[in-house]
Amino acid sequence: MSPDLLRDFDALIQRKGYHNRSEALRAIVRAYLIESEWQDSAEEVLGTVVLVYDHDDREISETLAEIQHHHYQSIVCSTHVHLDEQNCLEMVVVRGAPGDVRAIADEIISAPGVKHGKLVCTKAAR
Amino acid sequence: MSPDLLRDFDALIQRKGYHNRSEALRAIVRAYLIESEWQDSAEEVLGTVVLVYDHDDREISETLAEIQHHHYQSIVCSTHVHLDEQNCLEMVVVRGAPGDVRAIADEIISAPGVKHGKLVCTKAAR
Amino acid sequence: MSPDLLRDFDALIQRKGYHNRSEALRAIVRAYLIESEWQDSAEEVLGTVVLVYDHDDREISETLAEIQHHHYQSIVCSTHVHLDEQNCLEMVVVRGAPGDVRAIADEIISAPGVKHGKLVCTKAAR
Amino acid sequence: MSPDLLRDFDALIQRKGYHNRSEALRAIVRAYLIESEWQDSAEEVLGTVVLVYDHDDREISETLAEIQHHHYQSIVCSTHVHLDEQNCLEMVVVRGAPGDVRAIADEIISAPGVKHGKLVCTKAAR
Repeated sequence: MSPDLLRDFDALIQRKGYHNRSEALRAIVRAYLIESEWQDSAEEVLGTVVLVYDHDDREISETLAEIQHHHYQSIVCSTHVHLDEQNCLEMVVVRGAPGDVRAIADEIISAPGVKHGKLVCTKAAR
Repeated sequence: MSPDLLRDFDALIQRKGYHNRSEALRAIVRAYLIESEWQDSAEEVLGTVVLVYDHDDREISETLAEIQHHHYQSIVCSTHVHLDEQNCLEMVVVRGAPGDVRAIADEIISAPGVKHGKLVCTKAAR
Repeated sequence: MSPDLLRDFDALIQRKGYHNRSEALRAIVRAYLIESEWQDSAEEVLGTVVLVYDHDDREISETLAEIQHHHYQSIVCSTHVHLDEQNCLEMVVVRGAPGDVRAIADEIISAPGVKHGKLVCTKAAR
Repeated sequence: MSPDLLRDFDALIQRKGYHNRSEALRAIVRAYLIESEWQDSAEEVLGTVVLVYDHDDREISETLAEIQHHHYQSIVCSTHVHLDEQNCLEMVVVRGAPGDVRAIADEIISAPGVKHGKLVCTKAAR
Protein backbone atom coordinates (compact mmCIF):
# COMPACT_ATOMS: atom_id res chain seq x y z
CA MET A 1 0.00 0.00 0.00
CA SER A 2 1.15 3.53 -0.71
CA PRO A 3 2.15 5.69 2.29
CA ASP A 4 -0.87 7.95 1.63
CA LEU A 5 -3.33 5.08 1.69
CA LEU A 6 -1.73 3.65 4.84
CA ARG A 7 -1.85 7.02 6.61
CA ASP A 8 -5.57 7.51 5.83
CA PHE A 9 -6.26 3.92 6.81
CA ASP A 10 -4.44 4.25 10.14
CA ALA A 11 -6.28 7.47 10.92
CA LEU A 12 -9.64 5.89 10.19
CA ILE A 13 -9.14 2.65 12.12
CA GLN A 14 -7.98 4.64 15.11
CA ARG A 15 -11.17 6.71 15.10
CA LYS A 16 -13.17 3.50 14.67
CA GLY A 17 -11.52 2.02 17.74
CA TYR A 18 -9.59 -0.86 16.20
CA HIS A 19 -6.44 -1.81 18.11
CA ASN A 20 -4.23 -2.47 15.12
CA ARG A 21 -4.15 -2.93 11.35
CA SER A 22 -4.54 -6.70 11.50
CA GLU A 23 -7.71 -6.48 13.51
CA ALA A 24 -9.15 -3.86 11.17
CA LEU A 25 -8.20 -5.79 8.05
CA ARG A 26 -9.80 -8.96 9.38
CA ALA A 27 -13.05 -7.08 10.05
CA ILE A 28 -13.04 -5.44 6.63
CA VAL A 29 -12.27 -8.67 4.80
CA ARG A 30 -15.04 -10.46 6.69
CA ALA A 31 -17.57 -7.73 5.79
CA TYR A 32 -16.39 -7.88 2.18
CA LEU A 33 -16.97 -11.64 2.08
CA ILE A 34 -20.47 -11.29 3.53
CA GLU A 35 -21.38 -8.52 1.14
CA SER A 36 -20.14 -10.59 -1.80
CA GLU A 37 -21.87 -13.80 -0.73
CA TRP A 38 -25.11 -13.17 -2.65
CA GLN A 39 -23.15 -13.02 -5.92
CA ASP A 40 -22.75 -16.78 -5.93
CA SER A 41 -26.35 -17.47 -5.08
CA ALA A 42 -28.12 -19.82 -7.45
CA GLU A 43 -31.39 -18.26 -6.36
CA GLU A 44 -33.01 -14.95 -7.05
CA VAL A 45 -31.52 -12.01 -5.17
CA LEU A 46 -32.86 -8.60 -4.30
CA GLY A 47 -30.74 -5.50 -4.75
CA THR A 48 -31.17 -1.86 -3.82
CA VAL A 49 -29.18 0.63 -5.86
CA VAL A 50 -28.69 3.86 -3.93
CA LEU A 51 -27.49 6.74 -6.07
CA VAL A 52 -26.94 10.47 -5.85
CA TYR A 53 -26.96 12.43 -9.06
CA ASP A 54 -26.80 15.95 -10.32
CA HIS A 55 -30.05 17.15 -11.81
CA ASP A 56 -28.25 19.97 -13.62
CA ASP A 57 -26.78 17.36 -15.92
CA ARG A 58 -29.73 17.58 -18.28
CA GLU A 59 -29.57 14.08 -19.69
CA ILE A 60 -29.46 12.07 -16.50
CA SER A 61 -33.20 11.97 -15.67
CA GLU A 62 -33.90 10.76 -19.16
CA THR A 63 -31.04 8.21 -19.10
CA LEU A 64 -32.08 6.75 -15.74
CA ALA A 65 -35.73 6.53 -16.84
CA GLU A 66 -34.66 4.71 -20.00
CA ILE A 67 -32.41 2.18 -18.24
CA GLN A 68 -35.17 1.42 -15.77
CA HIS A 69 -37.79 1.02 -18.48
CA HIS A 70 -35.58 -1.22 -20.53
CA HIS A 71 -35.30 -3.55 -17.49
CA TYR A 72 -38.84 -2.95 -16.21
CA GLN A 73 -39.45 -6.65 -15.60
CA SER A 74 -36.58 -6.74 -13.07
CA ILE A 75 -37.22 -3.38 -11.42
CA VAL A 76 -39.78 -3.47 -8.63
CA CYS A 77 -39.97 0.24 -7.85
CA SER A 78 -37.85 3.30 -7.19
CA THR A 79 -38.10 6.11 -4.67
CA HIS A 80 -36.76 9.56 -5.26
CA VAL A 81 -35.88 12.35 -2.83
CA HIS A 82 -35.03 15.85 -4.03
CA LEU A 83 -32.10 16.96 -1.88
CA ASP A 84 -31.82 20.49 -3.11
CA GLU A 85 -32.20 22.43 -6.35
CA GLN A 86 -29.28 20.42 -7.76
CA ASN A 87 -28.98 16.97 -6.16
CA CYS A 88 -31.23 13.91 -6.12
CA LEU A 89 -31.19 10.69 -4.16
CA GLU A 90 -32.74 7.67 -5.83
CA MET A 91 -33.20 4.13 -4.54
CA VAL A 92 -33.96 1.51 -7.17
CA VAL A 93 -35.13 -1.98 -6.15
CA VAL A 94 -34.00 -4.73 -8.56
CA ARG A 95 -34.94 -8.43 -8.42
CA GLY A 96 -33.42 -11.30 -10.40
CA ALA A 97 -30.46 -13.62 -10.89
CA PRO A 98 -27.27 -12.31 -9.20
CA GLY A 99 -25.54 -11.56 -12.50
CA ASP A 100 -28.51 -9.65 -13.88
CA VAL A 101 -28.93 -7.55 -10.72
CA ARG A 102 -25.21 -6.72 -10.75
CA ALA A 103 -25.31 -5.79 -14.45
CA ILE A 104 -28.35 -3.50 -14.09
CA ALA A 105 -26.78 -1.85 -11.02
CA ASP A 106 -23.52 -1.26 -12.90
CA GLU A 107 -25.41 0.25 -15.84
CA ILE A 108 -27.25 2.65 -13.49
CA ILE A 109 -24.20 3.57 -11.39
CA SER A 110 -21.96 4.21 -14.38
CA ALA A 111 -24.47 6.50 -16.12
CA PRO A 112 -22.92 9.93 -16.77
CA GLY A 113 -24.06 12.40 -14.11
CA VAL A 114 -24.18 9.87 -11.24
CA LYS A 115 -21.94 11.17 -8.43
CA HIS A 116 -22.12 8.25 -6.06
CA GLY A 117 -23.74 4.86 -6.39
CA LYS A 118 -23.82 1.68 -4.33
CA LEU A 119 -25.55 -1.68 -4.63
CA VAL A 120 -26.77 -3.37 -1.46
CA CYS A 121 -27.84 -6.91 -2.14
CA THR A 122 -29.33 -9.82 -0.29
CA LYS A 123 -30.61 -13.27 -1.09
CA ALA A 124 -34.36 -12.86 -1.51
CA ALA A 125 -35.08 -15.67 0.93
CA ARG A 126 -32.93 -17.52 3.40
CA MET B 1 -77.77 16.51 -17.93
CA SER B 2 -77.54 15.10 -21.40
CA PRO B 3 -79.35 11.78 -22.10
CA ASP B 4 -75.95 10.05 -22.57
CA LEU B 5 -74.63 11.23 -19.24
CA LEU B 6 -77.86 10.24 -17.49
CA ARG B 7 -77.82 6.77 -19.05
CA ASP B 8 -74.21 6.10 -17.95
CA PHE B 9 -74.98 7.50 -14.51
CA ASP B 10 -78.09 5.29 -14.12
CA ALA B 11 -76.14 2.23 -15.20
CA LEU B 12 -73.35 2.92 -12.70
CA ILE B 13 -75.55 3.68 -9.69
CA GLN B 14 -77.55 0.52 -10.33
CA ARG B 15 -74.35 -1.58 -10.26
CA LYS B 16 -73.27 0.27 -7.12
CA GLY B 17 -76.55 -0.64 -5.43
CA TYR B 18 -78.09 2.82 -4.99
CA HIS B 19 -81.89 2.81 -4.94
CA ASN B 20 -82.40 5.97 -6.98
CA ARG B 21 -80.70 9.03 -8.44
CA SER B 22 -81.37 11.21 -5.41
CA GLU B 23 -79.67 8.81 -3.04
CA ALA B 24 -76.65 8.50 -5.36
CA LEU B 25 -76.40 12.27 -5.87
CA ARG B 26 -76.51 12.90 -2.13
CA ALA B 27 -73.66 10.41 -1.59
CA ILE B 28 -71.58 11.87 -4.40
CA VAL B 29 -72.11 15.45 -3.27
CA ARG B 30 -71.21 14.51 0.32
CA ALA B 31 -67.97 12.82 -0.85
CA TYR B 32 -67.20 15.85 -3.02
CA LEU B 33 -67.59 18.16 -0.04
CA ILE B 34 -65.33 16.01 2.14
CA GLU B 35 -62.69 15.77 -0.57
CA SER B 36 -62.77 19.55 -1.03
CA GLU B 37 -62.66 20.38 2.68
CA TRP B 38 -58.86 20.58 2.91
CA GLN B 39 -58.80 23.38 0.32
CA ASP B 40 -60.08 25.85 2.88
CA SER B 41 -57.67 24.77 5.55
CA ALA B 42 -55.60 27.57 7.06
CA GLU B 43 -53.01 24.97 8.04
CA GLU B 44 -50.51 22.98 6.07
CA VAL B 45 -51.94 20.10 4.05
CA LEU B 46 -50.40 16.99 2.64
CA GLY B 47 -51.18 15.88 -0.90
CA THR B 48 -50.38 12.79 -2.93
CA VAL B 49 -50.41 13.23 -6.68
CA VAL B 50 -50.97 9.88 -8.40
CA LEU B 51 -50.21 9.94 -12.11
CA VAL B 52 -49.86 7.56 -15.03
CA TYR B 53 -47.77 8.68 -17.95
CA ASP B 54 -46.42 7.44 -21.21
CA HIS B 55 -42.69 6.97 -21.16
CA ASP B 56 -42.60 6.98 -24.98
CA ASP B 57 -43.33 10.68 -24.84
CA ARG B 58 -39.64 11.57 -24.65
CA GLU B 59 -39.93 14.83 -22.79
CA ILE B 60 -42.10 13.76 -19.90
CA SER B 61 -39.41 12.28 -17.58
CA GLU B 62 -37.41 15.46 -17.97
CA THR B 63 -40.45 17.72 -17.47
CA LEU B 64 -41.61 15.90 -14.34
CA ALA B 65 -38.09 15.96 -12.90
CA GLU B 66 -37.87 19.69 -13.54
CA ILE B 67 -41.23 20.54 -11.98
CA GLN B 68 -40.34 18.52 -8.90
CA HIS B 69 -36.92 20.12 -8.59
CA HIS B 70 -38.31 23.57 -8.98
CA HIS B 71 -40.61 22.89 -6.00
CA TYR B 72 -38.16 20.70 -4.11
CA GLN B 73 -38.86 22.42 -0.79
CA SER B 74 -42.52 21.34 -0.97
CA ILE B 75 -41.96 17.84 -2.36
CA VAL B 76 -41.22 15.20 0.26
CA CYS B 77 -40.53 12.24 -2.00
CA SER B 78 -41.87 10.37 -4.98
CA THR B 79 -42.21 6.67 -5.75
CA HIS B 80 -42.17 5.27 -9.23
CA VAL B 81 -43.42 1.94 -10.59
CA HIS B 82 -42.68 0.83 -14.15
CA LEU B 83 -45.91 -0.72 -15.41
CA ASP B 84 -44.67 -1.97 -18.73
CA GLU B 85 -42.29 -0.91 -21.49
CA GLN B 86 -44.51 2.13 -22.09
CA ASN B 87 -46.39 3.19 -18.94
CA CYS B 88 -45.29 4.52 -15.55
CA LEU B 89 -47.08 5.12 -12.29
CA GLU B 90 -45.72 7.87 -10.09
CA MET B 91 -46.85 9.04 -6.66
CA VAL B 92 -45.57 12.45 -5.57
CA VAL B 93 -45.96 13.61 -1.96
CA VAL B 94 -46.40 17.40 -1.62
CA ARG B 95 -46.61 19.40 1.60
CA GLY B 96 -47.61 23.04 2.05
CA ALA B 97 -50.41 25.58 2.07
CA PRO B 98 -53.57 24.30 0.31
CA GLY B 99 -53.21 26.69 -2.62
CA ASP B 100 -49.57 25.76 -3.20
CA VAL B 101 -50.25 22.02 -3.07
CA ARG B 102 -53.15 22.43 -5.54
CA ALA B 103 -50.98 24.54 -7.88
CA ILE B 104 -48.07 22.07 -7.89
CA ALA B 105 -50.48 19.16 -8.46
CA ASP B 106 -52.12 20.98 -11.37
CA GLU B 107 -48.72 21.72 -12.91
CA ILE B 108 -47.76 18.03 -12.69
CA ILE B 109 -51.11 16.65 -13.87
CA SER B 110 -51.34 19.01 -16.84
CA ALA B 111 -47.81 18.21 -18.10
CA PRO B 112 -47.95 16.89 -21.68
CA GLY B 113 -47.71 13.09 -21.69
CA VAL B 114 -49.64 12.57 -18.45
CA LYS B 115 -52.58 10.24 -19.20
CA HIS B 116 -54.31 10.29 -15.86
CA GLY B 117 -53.64 12.26 -12.70
CA LYS B 118 -55.39 12.75 -9.40
CA LEU B 119 -54.62 14.66 -6.21
CA VAL B 120 -55.59 13.10 -2.88
CA CYS B 121 -55.24 15.57 -0.09
CA THR B 122 -55.65 15.68 3.66
CA LYS B 123 -55.04 18.14 6.43
CA ALA B 124 -51.61 17.28 7.80
CA ALA B 125 -52.90 17.10 11.35
CA ARG B 126 -56.39 16.96 12.82
CA MET C 1 -80.87 16.93 -0.30
CA SER C 2 -81.03 18.33 3.18
CA PRO C 3 -80.81 22.13 3.60
CA ASP C 4 -77.41 21.73 5.30
CA LEU C 5 -75.96 19.69 2.46
CA LEU C 6 -77.35 22.13 -0.11
CA ARG C 7 -75.92 25.13 1.73
CA ASP C 8 -72.41 23.59 1.91
CA PHE C 9 -72.66 22.54 -1.71
CA ASP C 10 -73.70 26.01 -2.87
CA ALA C 11 -70.85 27.58 -0.90
CA LEU C 12 -68.29 25.22 -2.41
CA ILE C 13 -69.41 25.50 -6.04
CA GLN C 14 -69.41 29.26 -5.76
CA ARG C 15 -65.79 29.24 -4.58
CA LYS C 16 -64.94 26.80 -7.37
CA GLY C 17 -66.39 29.18 -9.95
CA TYR C 18 -69.37 27.14 -11.18
CA HIS C 19 -72.28 29.25 -12.44
CA ASN C 20 -75.06 27.10 -11.02
CA ARG C 21 -75.92 23.77 -9.41
CA SER C 22 -76.67 22.04 -12.70
CA GLU C 23 -73.27 22.86 -14.14
CA ALA C 24 -71.52 21.69 -10.96
CA LEU C 25 -73.57 18.47 -10.77
CA ARG C 26 -72.80 17.64 -14.39
CA ALA C 27 -69.05 18.07 -13.73
CA ILE C 28 -69.15 15.98 -10.55
CA VAL C 29 -71.18 13.20 -12.17
CA ARG C 30 -68.79 13.13 -15.12
CA ALA C 31 -65.76 12.86 -12.82
CA TYR C 32 -67.52 10.15 -10.83
CA LEU C 33 -68.14 8.13 -14.00
CA ILE C 34 -64.50 8.46 -15.09
CA GLU C 35 -63.22 7.47 -11.67
CA SER C 36 -65.52 4.44 -11.65
CA GLU C 37 -64.71 3.31 -15.18
CA TRP C 38 -61.82 1.04 -14.22
CA GLN C 39 -64.15 -1.04 -12.04
CA ASP C 40 -65.67 -2.67 -15.10
CA SER C 41 -62.34 -3.37 -16.76
CA ALA C 42 -61.80 -6.98 -17.77
CA GLU C 43 -58.07 -6.31 -17.61
CA GLU C 44 -55.67 -5.84 -14.77
CA VAL C 45 -55.85 -2.47 -13.05
CA LEU C 46 -53.40 -0.57 -10.89
CA GLY C 47 -54.53 1.13 -7.73
CA THR C 48 -52.86 3.46 -5.24
CA VAL C 49 -54.33 3.50 -1.76
CA VAL C 50 -53.47 6.74 0.02
CA LEU C 51 -54.10 6.66 3.74
CA VAL C 52 -53.46 8.72 6.84
CA TYR C 53 -53.39 6.95 10.16
CA ASP C 54 -52.70 7.56 13.76
CA HIS C 55 -49.54 5.90 14.99
CA ASP C 56 -50.69 6.23 18.59
CA ASP C 57 -53.24 3.55 17.89
CA ARG C 58 -50.82 0.77 18.82
CA GLU C 59 -52.28 -1.96 16.63
CA ILE C 60 -52.45 -0.19 13.32
CA SER C 61 -48.81 -0.68 12.14
CA GLU C 62 -49.13 -4.37 12.84
CA THR C 63 -52.56 -4.62 11.18
CA LEU C 64 -51.45 -2.79 8.02
CA ALA C 65 -48.31 -4.93 7.79
CA GLU C 66 -50.40 -8.07 8.10
CA ILE C 67 -52.96 -7.08 5.47
CA GLN C 68 -50.19 -6.20 3.05
CA HIS C 69 -48.32 -9.45 3.69
CA HIS C 70 -51.41 -11.51 3.27
CA HIS C 71 -51.86 -9.98 -0.20
CA TYR C 72 -48.15 -9.70 -0.99
CA GLN C 73 -48.59 -11.08 -4.51
CA SER C 74 -50.87 -8.15 -5.40
CA ILE C 75 -48.97 -5.42 -3.58
CA VAL C 76 -46.10 -3.90 -5.55
CA CYS C 77 -44.67 -1.59 -2.90
CA SER C 78 -45.62 1.00 -0.34
CA THR C 79 -44.10 4.32 0.65
CA HIS C 80 -44.41 5.82 4.08
CA VAL C 81 -43.99 9.40 5.27
CA HIS C 82 -43.93 10.28 8.97
CA LEU C 83 -45.97 13.46 9.26
CA ASP C 84 -45.39 14.16 12.90
CA GLU C 85 -45.00 12.25 16.16
CA GLN C 86 -48.57 11.02 15.73
CA ASN C 87 -49.61 10.83 12.06
CA CYS C 88 -48.41 8.78 9.09
CA LEU C 89 -49.10 8.96 5.39
CA GLU C 90 -48.85 5.70 3.49
CA MET C 91 -49.26 5.01 -0.22
CA VAL C 92 -49.80 1.37 -1.17
CA VAL C 93 -49.59 0.25 -4.82
CA VAL C 94 -51.90 -2.68 -5.65
CA ARG C 95 -52.12 -4.56 -8.95
CA GLY C 96 -54.74 -7.08 -10.06
CA ALA C 97 -58.31 -7.66 -11.22
CA PRO C 98 -60.60 -4.69 -10.44
CA GLY C 99 -62.59 -6.56 -7.81
CA ASP C 100 -59.45 -7.74 -6.01
CA VAL C 101 -57.88 -4.26 -5.98
CA ARG C 102 -61.12 -2.78 -4.62
CA ALA C 103 -61.37 -5.47 -1.93
CA ILE C 104 -57.77 -5.01 -0.72
CA ALA C 105 -58.21 -1.22 -0.69
CA ASP C 106 -61.42 -1.54 1.34
CA GLU C 107 -59.69 -3.86 3.81
CA ILE C 108 -56.85 -1.34 4.28
CA ILE C 109 -59.06 1.75 4.45
CA SER C 110 -61.49 0.22 6.94
CA ALA C 111 -58.72 -0.92 9.33
CA PRO C 112 -59.26 0.59 12.80
CA GLY C 113 -56.99 3.61 13.26
CA VAL C 114 -57.13 4.79 9.64
CA LYS C 115 -58.36 8.40 9.63
CA HIS C 116 -58.65 8.98 5.94
CA GLY C 117 -58.20 6.67 2.98
CA LYS C 118 -58.76 6.88 -0.74
CA LEU C 119 -58.21 4.55 -3.69
CA VAL C 120 -57.03 6.05 -6.97
CA CYS C 121 -57.22 3.53 -9.76
CA THR C 122 -56.40 3.29 -13.42
CA LYS C 123 -56.36 0.63 -16.07
CA ALA C 124 -52.79 -0.68 -16.14
CA ALA C 125 -52.53 -0.13 -19.90
CA ARG C 126 -54.69 1.69 -22.43
CA MET D 1 -6.07 -13.97 9.46
CA SER D 2 -7.35 -17.45 10.13
CA PRO D 3 -6.80 -20.10 7.41
CA ASP D 4 -10.59 -20.26 6.81
CA LEU D 5 -10.87 -16.54 6.27
CA LEU D 6 -7.85 -16.53 3.99
CA ARG D 7 -9.21 -19.41 1.93
CA ASP D 8 -12.59 -17.71 1.39
CA PHE D 9 -10.83 -14.45 0.61
CA ASP D 10 -8.55 -16.06 -1.96
CA ALA D 11 -11.48 -17.80 -3.62
CA LEU D 12 -13.45 -14.57 -3.86
CA ILE D 13 -10.65 -12.36 -5.19
CA GLN D 14 -9.85 -14.95 -7.83
CA ARG D 15 -13.46 -14.90 -9.08
CA LYS D 16 -13.38 -11.11 -9.00
CA GLY D 17 -10.29 -11.09 -11.21
CA TYR D 18 -7.71 -9.61 -8.81
CA HIS D 19 -4.15 -10.74 -9.51
CA ASN D 20 -3.06 -11.12 -5.89
CA ARG D 21 -3.97 -10.39 -2.27
CA SER D 22 -2.15 -7.05 -2.17
CA GLU D 23 -4.07 -5.69 -5.13
CA ALA D 24 -7.38 -6.85 -3.64
CA LEU D 25 -6.58 -5.45 -0.19
CA ARG D 26 -5.66 -2.07 -1.65
CA ALA D 27 -8.97 -1.93 -3.54
CA ILE D 28 -10.97 -2.95 -0.47
CA VAL D 29 -9.20 -0.50 1.82
CA ARG D 30 -9.72 2.30 -0.68
CA ALA D 31 -13.46 1.53 -0.92
CA TYR D 32 -13.65 1.37 2.87
CA LEU D 33 -12.05 4.82 3.18
CA ILE D 34 -14.46 6.31 0.62
CA GLU D 35 -17.46 4.75 2.32
CA SER D 36 -16.32 6.09 5.68
CA GLU D 37 -15.52 9.59 4.44
CA TRP D 38 -18.98 11.05 5.14
CA GLN D 39 -18.62 10.19 8.85
CA ASP D 40 -16.24 13.09 9.36
CA SER D 41 -18.38 15.57 7.47
CA ALA D 42 -19.20 18.73 9.38
CA GLU D 43 -22.24 19.12 7.14
CA GLU D 44 -25.52 17.31 6.95
CA VAL D 45 -25.38 13.87 5.35
CA LEU D 46 -28.02 11.71 3.75
CA GLY D 47 -28.23 8.03 4.56
CA THR D 48 -30.27 5.15 3.18
CA VAL D 49 -30.76 2.19 5.51
CA VAL D 50 -31.53 -0.94 3.52
CA LEU D 51 -32.87 -3.78 5.63
CA VAL D 52 -34.43 -7.21 5.24
CA TYR D 53 -36.54 -8.50 8.08
CA ASP D 54 -38.74 -11.38 8.98
CA HIS D 55 -42.39 -10.45 9.21
CA ASP D 56 -43.14 -13.59 11.23
CA ASP D 57 -41.32 -11.98 14.12
CA ARG D 58 -44.50 -10.32 15.40
CA GLU D 59 -42.89 -7.35 17.09
CA ILE D 60 -40.67 -6.08 14.32
CA SER D 61 -43.24 -4.02 12.33
CA GLU D 62 -44.22 -2.28 15.53
CA THR D 63 -40.60 -1.74 16.63
CA LEU D 64 -39.52 -0.30 13.27
CA ALA D 65 -42.57 1.99 13.17
CA GLU D 66 -41.76 3.23 16.66
CA ILE D 67 -38.08 3.92 15.96
CA GLN D 68 -38.99 5.82 12.82
CA HIS D 69 -41.66 7.84 14.58
CA HIS D 70 -39.38 8.70 17.43
CA HIS D 71 -36.92 10.17 14.91
CA TYR D 72 -39.56 11.48 12.50
CA GLN D 73 -37.80 14.83 12.09
CA SER D 74 -34.72 13.08 10.66
CA ILE D 75 -36.54 10.48 8.56
CA VAL D 76 -37.56 11.67 5.11
CA CYS D 77 -39.50 8.63 3.94
CA SER D 78 -39.33 4.86 3.71
CA THR D 79 -40.27 2.43 0.99
CA HIS D 80 -41.33 -1.11 1.63
CA VAL D 81 -41.40 -4.17 -0.66
CA HIS D 82 -43.04 -7.41 0.41
CA LEU D 83 -40.72 -10.15 -0.77
CA ASP D 84 -42.82 -13.11 0.15
CA GLU D 85 -45.21 -14.19 2.90
CA GLN D 86 -42.31 -13.97 5.36
CA ASN D 87 -39.68 -11.43 4.27
CA CYS D 88 -39.72 -7.67 3.79
CA LEU D 89 -37.30 -5.22 2.26
CA GLU D 90 -37.36 -1.70 3.64
CA MET D 91 -35.36 1.37 2.63
CA VAL D 92 -35.34 4.22 5.11
CA VAL D 93 -33.99 7.66 4.12
CA VAL D 94 -32.39 9.55 7.03
CA ARG D 95 -31.03 13.11 6.97
CA GLY D 96 -28.90 14.86 9.60
CA ALA D 97 -25.52 15.19 11.23
CA PRO D 98 -23.23 12.19 10.55
CA GLY D 99 -23.36 10.94 14.15
CA ASP D 100 -27.15 11.14 14.29
CA VAL D 101 -27.61 9.32 10.99
CA ARG D 102 -25.21 6.59 12.12
CA ALA D 103 -27.00 6.24 15.47
CA ILE D 104 -30.48 5.97 13.93
CA ALA D 105 -29.20 3.44 11.38
CA ASP D 106 -27.62 1.35 14.14
CA GLU D 107 -30.84 1.44 16.15
CA ILE D 108 -32.82 0.20 13.12
CA ILE D 109 -30.31 -2.44 12.02
CA SER D 110 -29.89 -3.90 15.50
CA ALA D 111 -33.65 -4.25 16.09
CA PRO D 112 -34.55 -7.89 16.86
CA GLY D 113 -35.91 -9.58 13.73
CA VAL D 114 -33.70 -7.69 11.26
CA LYS D 115 -31.78 -10.27 9.21
CA HIS D 116 -29.56 -7.98 7.20
CA GLY D 117 -29.05 -4.24 7.30
CA LYS D 118 -26.70 -1.78 5.68
CA LEU D 119 -26.29 1.98 5.73
CA VAL D 120 -25.29 3.75 2.53
CA CYS D 121 -24.37 7.35 3.18
CA THR D 122 -23.34 10.38 1.23
CA LYS D 123 -22.68 14.01 1.93
CA ALA D 124 -25.93 15.79 1.09
CA ALA D 125 -24.18 18.28 -1.18
CA ARG D 126 -20.70 18.45 -2.64
